[in-house]
Amino acid sequence: MTTEQSRRKRASKLVAENKLEALLVTSLHNVRYLTGFTGSSANVLLYRNGNAVLFTDPRYTVQSKQQVNCHIKIAKGPLTRAIAAEISRVQVAKIGFEPEHINVARLEGLKKALPSKARLISAPEGLIAKQRMVKDEGEIALIRAAVDINSRALEAALKRFKTGMTETALAAEIDYQSRKLGADGPAFDTIVAAGVRAALPHAHPGAAKIGPGMLLIDMGAFKDGYASDMTRMVHVGPADSHYKRAYAAVLESQLAGIAAVRPGATAASVDRAVRRTLKKHGLDREFIHSTGHGLGLEIHEGPRVGKSDKSKLEPGMTITIEPGIYIEGWGGIRIEDTVLVTKTGCEILTPTRKDLVEL
Amino acid sequence: MTTEQSRRKRASKLVAENKLEALLVTSLHNVRYLTGFTGSSANVLLYRNGNAVLFTDPRYTVQSKQQVNCHIKIAKGPLTRAIAAEISRVQVAKIGFEPEHINVARLEGLKKALPSKARLISAPEGLIAKQRMVKDEGEIALIRAAVDINSRALEAALKRFKTGMTETALAAEIDYQSRKLGADGPAFDTIVAAGVRAALPHAHPGAAKIGPGMLLIDMGAFKDGYASDMTRMVHVGPADSHYKRAYAAVLESQLAGIAAVRPGATAASVDRAVRRTLKKHGLDREFIHSTGHGLGLEIHEGPRVGKSDKSKLEPGMTITIEPGIYIEGWGGIRIEDTVLVTKTGCEILTPTRKDLVEL
Repeated sequence: MTTEQSRRKRASKLVAENKLEALLVTSLHNVRYLTGFTGSSANVLLYRNGNAVLFTDPRYTVQSKQQVNCHIKIAKGPLTRAIAAEISRVQVAKIGFEPEHINVARLEGLKKALPSKARLISAPEGLIAKQRMVKDEGEIALIRAAVDINSRALEAALKRFKTGMTETALAAEIDYQSRKLGADGPAFDTIVAAGVRAALPHAHPGAAKIGPGMLLIDMGAFKDGYASDMTRMVHVGPADSHYKRAYAAVLESQLAGIAAVRPGATAASVDRAVRRTLKKHGLDREFIHSTGHGLGLEIHEGPRVGKSDKSKLEPGMTITIEPGIYIEGWGGIRIEDTVLVTKTGCEILTPTRKDLVEL
Repeated sequence: MTTEQSRRKRASKLVAENKLEALLVTSLHNVRYLTGFTGSSANVLLYRNGNAVLFTDPRYTVQSKQQVNCHIKIAKGPLTRAIAAEISRVQVAKIGFEPEHINVARLEGLKKALPSKARLISAPEGLIAKQRMVKDEGEIALIRAAVDINSRALEAALKRFKTGMTETALAAEIDYQSRKLGADGPAFDTIVAAGVRAALPHAHPGAAKIGPGMLLIDMGAFKDGYASDMTRMVHVGPADSHYKRAYAAVLESQLAGIAAVRPGATAASVDRAVRRTLKKHGLDREFIHSTGHGLGLEIHEGPRVGKSDKSKLEPGMTITIEPGIYIEGWGGIRIEDTVLVTKTGCEILTPTRKDLVEL
């Protein structure tokens, strides 16, 4: 059985458990997970016996044959019509859909196209996403590769860094090094934020020249579809004591978060460990986002490592731990690793150093 | 009145025409178009009098203040809750939603959160998208800049091309040059497909070395959020007569498509002009996709330049003209420009040469 077949087998049990005869998979990430197909337009109909049909369009006739080992239907018109024809043919009546991955207009279109006996039923949210939270060996290997590329790309890019370089130029350099090292591309828009701009957690690199002061770099790489994610600070020129104290506090909170990661612990408990440490340093109110998130085929997947996520960590989950503080008019500090939950705790996948760096 | 204010004013008339008191804008591209906000999480409530509220989360407190000139609500919890609070406060009852931009789960969540008097009503599909099809001066300037960067990036990357380079390495070089020239990033995954792989219209660059033969490059750049799109063929080493004939036929069809672009012509008539020319050369069955698409804040927007799109072209629309032929086991040829519909016909924005290139 191939990896994709065994994933479909497991997913089909969820279909049956939810009293559905089939599940219409509309999330492209779920399509890729279940079939290996990487094109930009496809749906999968997964039957409760584990059989599946991939629907795509003629642009992908050749590619789908190369990538996919389930049935393939090439739809000359809208996918909806081809799906309706298949459902008429096999006469299934209870078809689940992914409510968080189908828009209202598409669902209406499907309802109209389906034979009168067929019913579309909302599957529980995150049905396949939950299965995807725990990564298999192949997935972990790809995430390791993505993490490794990412760290090497940062190292290579920083070798080319010069004071006065623009944020945009450094971001371009990072992405280029990452691609040269084998990444599919960046896992998200690379963040390079210098000085006061580091106070914007999701800053876009700008034309600003990077002068002496703090520099926040948040970057990720996709490798064969799998993501990595890392944030590092460097300080251009010597850091002052304010920065040093704040850096030490954020690092301490990040290490506290990592120490809290183990099977059975809730995602919320990891977040709490981080906040508790920041609070000790009077910095908890400057931490304005969650501690982290799962990652895999998507840069953001479950579990959400936040205050209210009670899902329990399991071996094989890959998550980020990324506390940060943001102070308008001063700047920001964030430190982020990708970690793998193991049987006994966790393994920090990111190899890049975390001591305070002055360039 | 700022550009965004006048866009909101025009859009609010559509809200009123559809007998809605407000429209909940959930497409991030529409959010950007109406407010200038570029963050990754936001909704806009646009009232029929042209007032608007942007909802986003604390990561974007600083950024939203810098970018947006309408009201801003920073939601500490889910956006849905903040939206419901606003709707309760202003007591609007008929709120439209964008059916193609809201997933079923989110709509259900909103329905539950709203005050009992408020009703969510499906707005017509593409309400804001239709307004976006015709670009204003500022948008056209950005698309010109994106096209220009894209063409210069191809030129710079090809100067660095050597036979034996991998598809991936050339794609990385293209993206790097594009970023160095000021692009935000690629408008889509750059396609570099050599030899028989050019038969896959949406090939991902692979580890294959580029040897003598045909080479298809499809690339686009975002500049300040606006897209460009271009496909060019180069032939590594001397081309044979089969390739030359096919290239000439595709180019002829592309020029026929461009000649058909004028205000009042339907998108379908442009597609027909292309197909007619390919048919003359016996190649119409190898043309397996549409002739082109609009582009702007998205790489694919309306109008769809395809068989069945009866929308009439208008001055200010920016579309691609990109016929291609694909033959399994042989390869493929596609030629694509970005063009601007003018008062009298169209202007080809893409400056890159289209005669047969042998490297």
